Amino acid sequence: KTTRKKVYTHSERAALCQHPLTQKLLTIMDMKKTNLALSADVTSSKQLLSLADSIGPYICILKTHIDILDDFSPDVTAELRALADKHNFVIFEDRKFADIGRTVQHQLSSGIYHISRWADLVNAHPLPGPGIIDGLKQIIKNFIIISYSPTEAIEMAEANSDFVIGYICQSRLTDNPQFLHMTPGVKLVEGGDSLGQQYTTPEDVIRRKTCDIIIVGRGITESVDPVATAIHYQQAGYAAYVSLFH
Amino acid sequence: KTTRKKVYTHSERAALCQHPLTQKLLTIMDMKKTNLALSADVTSSKQLLSLADSIGPYICILKTHIDILDDFSPDVTAELRALADKHNFVIFEDRKFADIGRTVQHQLSSGIYHISRWADLVNAHPLPGPGIIDGLKQIIKNFIIISYSPTEAIEMAEANSDFVIGYICQSRLTDNPQFLHMTPGVKLVEGGDSLGQQYTTPEDVIRRKTCDIIIVGRGITESVDPVATAIHYQQAGYAAYVSLFH
Repeated sequence: KTTRKKVYTHSERAALCQHPLTQKLLTIMDMKKTNLALSADVTSSKQLLSLADSIGPYICILKTHIDILDDFSPDVTAELRALADKHNFVIFEDRKFADIGRTVQHQLSSGIYHISRWADLVNAHPLPGPGIIDGLKQIIKNFIIISYSPTEAIEMAEANSDFVIGYICQSRLTDNPQFLHMTPGVKLVEGGDSLGQQYTTPEDVIRRKTCDIIIVGRGITESVDPVATAIHYQQAGYAAYVSLFH
Repeated sequence: KTTRKKVYTHSERAALCQHPLTQKLLTIMDMKKTNLALSADVTSSKQLLSLADSIGPYICILKTHIDILDDFSPDVTAELRALADKHNFVIFEDRKFADIGRTVQHQLSSGIYHISRWADLVNAHPLPGPGIIDGLKQIIKNFIIISYSPTEAIEMAEANSDFVIGYICQSRLTDNPQFLHMTPGVKLVEGGDSLGQQYTTPEDVIRRKTCDIIIVGRGITESVDPVATAIHYQQAGYAAYVSLFH
């Protein structure tokens, strides 16, 4: 069983962190009593906005894949932004940037989506090397690294702690309280899909792997009553967090 | 100096390969006497289509980043498709898929871009694991792996040779003649940009690293006379290939 030297509460960590978005996120988590991120992987704008509005009160992060919307228009991101302010959550565009610095700059700021105009947070693979960070950093201030390669991820994050707020990972990578650990593939019941996705539980992520945020997608979006299910995940995730102090 | 056991001509390799797109590509390379891929990283549709039309005769592949176009419309991809048929080149959307199977399926077939409708070829990072291949394979037939992690890349390619046609890499990974090796970051003069991109030369890529295709972007698109420069690259790349047999 992994144990951390010191377990900080969300508000203690908010005070320790330098990065404004990390502070904001930890404050949201503390105030709204939630470590739940909703992965809103739907292909209709109406459905996305409806999920953001109905489930917004129970989440700290709304994770989007803006490029799978079949009916995208700039109005969608404007409305998302308004809902993020209304319900106090952070918008995380899960673009998984993975190219050279100059290309990711275009992908982040140009094109149809203009991601940097409305997303609070984006992510990238560390593999293309430091140029990807340098490219993104010139355009957006908040960023998560995907830790398929933990060594590279940690190195890149520590070297850019003014910019990198954390990791997408399956278990805690570092005791540095400045970095948030977010874990995807969470369901209330373990299992998998037909394309290799494996699911883990909120209890497992927060207590055993000592990560900070559970990312839940189909467990909520494909349930019969998404709002009730989201509340269920919020409570399970937060109870696991609270139990760290007992 | 790296030496291959046997150097095949493009037409010999076309006969050895099972994959229809690899055969098509090697046949184009043989007929048009070119191993040049143009990386058309421009943000205007008009500029993209103009490059595709004027430089189309000299390339085997047009590599696109459809998501950096500021004025994308479905007409653009229809026109690109028509130009690919007119000039006989392959369209390679350099999307660098890097997510779980279900998400990449949406990204490939849905959204605004409907990549699978017009791209001959896409690519992905091997890191998310076999699910990414299984997801893409259900939708598109042709695919390149990016080899930041050569071991994983080779393993994944060999296990999916009905689907994977080659690698994006800096030097040859395997002697298996079925796999095409494509190298980005090529200029006539070595050097770099301010975001960590390093450049190598056609001679170096084709002769010393024994790769098959040179991918040239800014070296052509930012030159004073892109067509004349493209012809220059085509000749340099092809001369390096011909020299392998002397």
